[in-house]
Amino acid sequence: MAKRIITISREFGSGGRSIGKALAQKLGWKYYDKELVQEVALESGFDENYIEEHSEFAPAASSLAYAFTQPGVPGVMRGMSATDFLWCIQREVILKLAEKESCVIVGRNADFILRDRKDVLNVFIHADPAYRAKRIVRLYGESEKSPEQRLHAKDKKRAVNYKHYTGQDWGDSHNYHLALDSGVLGEVVCVRLIEELVKQES
Amino acid sequence: MAKRIITISREFGSGGRSIGKALAQKLGWKYYDKELVQEVALESGFDENYIEEHSEFAPAASSLAYAFTQPGVPGVMRGMSATDFLWCIQREVILKLAEKESCVIVGRNADFILRDRKDVLNVFIHADPAYRAKRIVRLYGESEKSPEQRLHAKDKKRAVNYKHYTGQDWGDSHNYHLALDSGVLGEVVCVRLIEELVKQES
Repeated sequence: MAKRIITISREFGSGGRSIGKALAQKLGWKYYDKELVQEVALESGFDENYIEEHSEFAPAASSLAYAFTQPGVPGVMRGMSATDFLWCIQREVILKLAEKESCVIVGRNADFILRDRKDVLNVFIHADPAYRAKRIVRLYGESEKSPEQRLHAKDKKRAVNYKHYTGQDWGDSHNYHLALDSGVLGEVVCVRLIEELVKQES
Repeated sequence: MAKRIITISREFGSGGRSIGKALAQKLGWKYYDKELVQEVALESGFDENYIEEHSEFAPAASSLAYAFTQPGVPGVMRGMSATDFLWCIQREVILKLAEKESCVIVGRNADFILRDRKDVLNVFIHADPAYRAKRIVRLYGESEKSPEQRLHAKDKKRAVNYKHYTGQDWGDSHNYHLALDSGVLGEVVCVRLIEELVKQES
């Protein structure tokens, strides 16, 4: 069946975001990454920075998470923790977007959220830590943590969040139609492969 | 760097073998699957059927495995269990083949054995169990076990063998440059994608 939605799950620093952006441009499709955060902010009333910080991370990473769930505290969050509430809103936004238009969605467990649709191509982008470490220093500069620590911390949070909300293992090839090593294949080749795949399926 | 060896790891019934065969034909490369068994038989003196049965399976699956390792029993197997001995011979054969010629190698943990070479493209082929069950019944007929049981038994053995000899998780996308869902993408598309990738890298 023709694919009109691409979800891109990616390791930190693998270039998954650049690949997604290039693909959306080549296909003339909408691109959702930070743009999704804006939609979720509108729906949830949460601050964009807060969403950015918590929407792909483990529930435990949220200091606010259980602040609203104490007995007797009524809330806008239907009795859920802040991260669970955010997950629900984000899920609804992603389901609506997929219904509305052809698009590329980066992260946010969109592969799992859209698993019942036949018009979705799920892609995972990964690369070895040395390649990614070099890339994040080039793009985002140095920080007090080593690049390896930054990679590990971010990937671990994404993996825990994915496991918590989907029950699946992040990076297990069974969850994706296509998994690519961007470090070995290169970003340009990754874009071309995915683009061809979408075009020949149409 | 140009790729001149393709390793294909595959779930039982996913069509990985057909994909490998078609690729070798299109590229004009040698194809090693059962052909590898013959080489290993020559080197090891083991019977081809025995090798076929044990070379991709868990050490525990071999009833002969420890028969030769009792203290005081000298042997041609350098004091190793039969499956470990088989693994060593198979490893040597694969290393030699890779040195000798462009080829497609199916199974046998070749991705791990050749991990230090830069001219190898590692591919994993998977598909959902329903697709594979239908396919194995069409190709190999019914048996007293249900197709689902047959898939589960064979994949579990391959996964245990891979974990034992490589320390890695079978099917984890990090172990492969490319992982493809043959059920959703189709075998023809899988062949084309891999072929294009090899050609454009050359």
